Amino acid sequence: MKAEHEAAGRPEPCVVGVDFGTLSGRAVVVRVRDGAELGAAEHAYSHAVLDRALPDGTVLPPDWALQVPSDYVDVLRLAVPEALARAGVRPEQVIGIGTDFTACTVLPVLADGTPLCELPEFVGRPHAYIKLWRHHAAQDQADRINALAAERGEPWLARYGGKISSEWEFAKALQVLEEDPEVYRRTERWVEAADWIVWQLCGAYVRNACTAGYKGQYQDGVYPSPGHLAALHPDFAGFVADKLDQPIGELGAPAGLLTAEAAAWTGLPEGITVCVGNVDAHVTAPAAAAVEPGQMVAIMGTSTCHVMSSDQQAVVPGMCGVVDGGILPGLWGYEAGQSGVGDIFGWFIRTGFPASYAEEAAALGRDPHEHLTALAAGQKVGEHGLIALDWHSGNRSVLVDHDLSGVLVGLTLSTRPEDVYRALLEATAFGTRTIIDAFETAGVPVRELIIAGGLTKNALLMQIYADVTGRPLGVIGSTQGPALGAAMHAAVAAGAYADIRAAAQAMGKSQRGVYQPDPERAAAYERLYAEYRLLHDHFGRGANDVMHRLRRLRAEVSA
Amino acid sequence: MKAEHEAAGRPEPCVVGVDFGTLSGRAVVVRVRDGAELGAAEHAYSHAVLDRALPDGTVLPPDWALQVPSDYVDVLRLAVPEALARAGVRPEQVIGIGTDFTACTVLPVLADGTPLCELPEFVGRPHAYIKLWRHHAAQDQADRINALAAERGEPWLARYGGKISSEWEFAKALQVLEEDPEVYRRTERWVEAADWIVWQLCGAYVRNACTAGYKGQYQDGVYPSPGHLAALHPDFAGFVADKLDQPIGELGAPAGLLTAEAAAWTGLPEGITVCVGNVDAHVTAPAAAAVEPGQMVAIMGTSTCHVMSSDQQAVVPGMCGVVDGGILPGLWGYEAGQSGVGDIFGWFIRTGFPASYAEEAAALGRDPHEHLTALAAGQKVGEHGLIALDWHSGNRSVLVDHDLSGVLVGLTLSTRPEDVYRALLEATAFGTRTIIDAFETAGVPVRELIIAGGLTKNALLMQIYADVTGRPLGVIGSTQGPALGAAMHAAVAAGAYADIRAAAQAMGKSQRGVYQPDPERAAAYERLYAEYRLLHDHFGRGANDVMHRLRRLRAEVSA
Repeated sequence: MKAEHEAAGRPEPCVVGVDFGTLSGRAVVVRVRDGAELGAAEHAYSHAVLDRALPDGTVLPPDWALQVPSDYVDVLRLAVPEALARAGVRPEQVIGIGTDFTACTVLPVLADGTPLCELPEFVGRPHAYIKLWRHHAAQDQADRINALAAERGEPWLARYGGKISSEWEFAKALQVLEEDPEVYRRTERWVEAADWIVWQLCGAYVRNACTAGYKGQYQDGVYPSPGHLAALHPDFAGFVADKLDQPIGELGAPAGLLTAEAAAWTGLPEGITVCVGNVDAHVTAPAAAAVEPGQMVAIMGTSTCHVMSSDQQAVVPGMCGVVDGGILPGLWGYEAGQSGVGDIFGWFIRTGFPASYAEEAAALGRDPHEHLTALAAGQKVGEHGLIALDWHSGNRSVLVDHDLSGVLVGLTLSTRPEDVYRALLEATAFGTRTIIDAFETAGVPVRELIIAGGLTKNALLMQIYADVTGRPLGVIGSTQGPALGAAMHAAVAAGAYADIRAAAQAMGKSQRGVYQPDPERAAAYERLYAEYRLLHDHFGRGANDVMHRLRRLRAEVSA
Repeated sequence: MKAEHEAAGRPEPCVVGVDFGTLSGRAVVVRVRDGAELGAAEHAYSHAVLDRALPDGTVLPPDWALQVPSDYVDVLRLAVPEALARAGVRPEQVIGIGTDFTACTVLPVLADGTPLCELPEFVGRPHAYIKLWRHHAAQDQADRINALAAERGEPWLARYGGKISSEWEFAKALQVLEEDPEVYRRTERWVEAADWIVWQLCGAYVRNACTAGYKGQYQDGVYPSPGHLAALHPDFAGFVADKLDQPIGELGAPAGLLTAEAAAWTGLPEGITVCVGNVDAHVTAPAAAAVEPGQMVAIMGTSTCHVMSSDQQAVVPGMCGVVDGGILPGLWGYEAGQSGVGDIFGWFIRTGFPASYAEEAAALGRDPHEHLTALAAGQKVGEHGLIALDWHSGNRSVLVDHDLSGVLVGLTLSTRPEDVYRALLEATAFGTRTIIDAFETAGVPVRELIIAGGLTKNALLMQIYADVTGRPLGVIGSTQGPALGAAMHAAVAAGAYADIRAAAQAMGKSQRGVYQPDPERAAAYERLYAEYRLLHDHFGRGANDVMHRLRRLRAEVSA
């Protein structure tokens, strides 16, 4: 492609990817030919997460998490031009823009896309704002949706491992209806932020196949039925037809062309291709050049999201969801997750890292994680005598139970912080292994792991994952996986590649098999994994429901 | 009594108690009339514990713990005169001396009491030295003794809850025989240090009823039979007759009169009464004026020892032992214990007390224990959401399994150090409650707890014990419980009181019912205790033997 462009005297084509995270947005300018990241810029949302009060001071209840739409537009206005400037790329080189978002992050808007929270009469109304993915105040609604779906035998329920999350579109919308009917009535579209930002860029509302499937229970061309919704609340019957339903765009398809207004914001040429919206974890699979069946991509940060495509449609107990075209058009996209990973390691450093260790780490110029990792790295498998359950933040897959909690077994008077730290690293690896086993048992093979995200820098952790899963471990070749993935989708939408698979091959970056399982360690880990599974099933499947009882007692006495 | 003495112009009678601990000996001068402690002095053993090498450099294997007999004599030579001087008591006021010791702490001697390790030819021979109570290298011997006793249906086995310890006289003697037959052959008496020190004071070897029963399996007037011993090792058949058997002295009985040599060491008058030896935990019951059936005395330090007398002889599963006259002549003395208590709290401070907490504690002038206790004190029962098993140092009663280990359940990302600390305090209280329940189930009522030892200063811990056990909690009125108890036995031996019960009434010190169970907290703790018992039985009785498997794996990979 390079030769062709050069010969023609045309500029090297580029695309822009914008990744909208929880606290900031990152723009990356990427060369279409090979995925080279030429320049990047980040903009932190000025309102960050509203979890205590609205900007006007209105106090929020516990478990709420809101955002402000203008913060997203600021990313377009500030980060995109800065990334362009840093890349030294001329605007006319850019042939398309793609985005990815957290999900389910969802907001009520008018028919023209105006967020309700921007209407003067709704400035002080919490339900008029964007509900961030980690808004957890709709658990009651989710519980009722699940119970009713199970009772009615709704066919879509199995596609979500048997349970939908309080984070998703229906639970959050039902909360609005029940708690602020006026906001609900004025809501003309209930739209994923992933699609709203694309709407701002191209002036057209196209619903992406990924969030429609994973967060909106859109399966086999239909949503949950009006009968089901009416049984939840009479005024909820028309929710799909009135506020949710919208033409679905395939991932990597064009949603429209960049408007003059958005061109002014971004400094990009009016009329370039704007790609259909997408989700951060899901765009990372092509960014890691790992889109084939059997290649599981794990995005490991504070939590872990596992995504994989397959030509098989199967029911995997406790998965987050399986969606036709949810990652790659034409394949079934599977998603699973662990709700606490890096968060657990961070918690341990915060609460279990003694002063003497802090001094030693400082003297050696190591951060606490590096220090404990270095101290733990020389151990043989099983040497610390511990086994842990990694449920400090609950279990997202395969038990789908956020009221579970962490366990440590095997403590002695000679147990040291590095021992517990290593046991926690291992516990999260056992958690991933449990998910892999659930996939394989359901007939969906997992042959290889490719890791993305911040935890890839911990080589001990990576080796443990290879040894525990018994699979070769690859590592993504970018620290901006989601933005790179979004840019790749833009390249496909702009016609530079035939499909995402082709873009992944040309632009995706990963090193394959960086970590290989060691047979001896893998064998020792089989023994520890057997212990993990015993504890997992004992505490997670009702044999001893102590975790729920402890949580109930805690809630009672704290009330 | 005071009036009588004063009227007669005679000096106020006093006694001396000497407590031989693990690292030092403490002498206390006590007024016979009321138990007032007039002066005390301590001497640290110059050889402390030999656990790595003999004084000549001979290296010791793991799990060994030895001591040097002259260190004990130094306590008589240095601490006793110093305590006398501090008390301002004239030697002629002292009518008797009593001692207590750690147990089973045992040594090989010649027929005249000379320790084998003091013979030039044995200076470099580890087995010639004193085996301290926490010498744990005779586990193999103990296992074989237990297995054989169970197989033969030995009647004494039930008196020890079904299992004897590797710390006791027979296991340690068999280890000597098997590992250094020459030292075994030259051993003319295998003597408890508790009795050896009395032998040094009065020139007569009288075996005390307490260690003979609790550590020597002396029950109903007999030791384990030659047939049993021969089955363990042919040369062990004559162990009892040749090296162990000796007239038994009741507790509080005179063993003899102070020799001229010992008078010269101590500065006490030659010819005063020397009391039969005794054990630190057991003498503490009268020191706390708690010798009646139903009064359980818990001596709480790094570990906890529970002692109680009863007129009932019962089989309590997993108790350390029941011995006729083991605490008070004429009553059945029961002993149970928890192998880790203060040790567990200390471990947590060493390994789980973050730098930020250390700074805050320092700023507030609190030591780490005080700081975490203060932070945890305001919590409601169950507020931390945790439940722990206190087996970091194994379980002495009622499971009698030193290969068990600690557990924490209920950890979340919001769990703080003070939460875990409080859960550990509570876990040890649940451990004591489990022991109490075992006694009551066996038909031995426990009506009241009286606490002695260093942990009495933690008021939160004391209140938790009252709430968890649902019993009023008294506290000993002395920081020198064992030495005071030893002195009281001397008063009885010297004829100042008719028996230990009378001495306990006049000289013992405790405040009764200092902590009363709060009904509301006690009810909440019932719920948590039910959780503790579920975990206790699950992990401790074989349903999930993960702790043993973890320990085995650890031993394998560390080998």
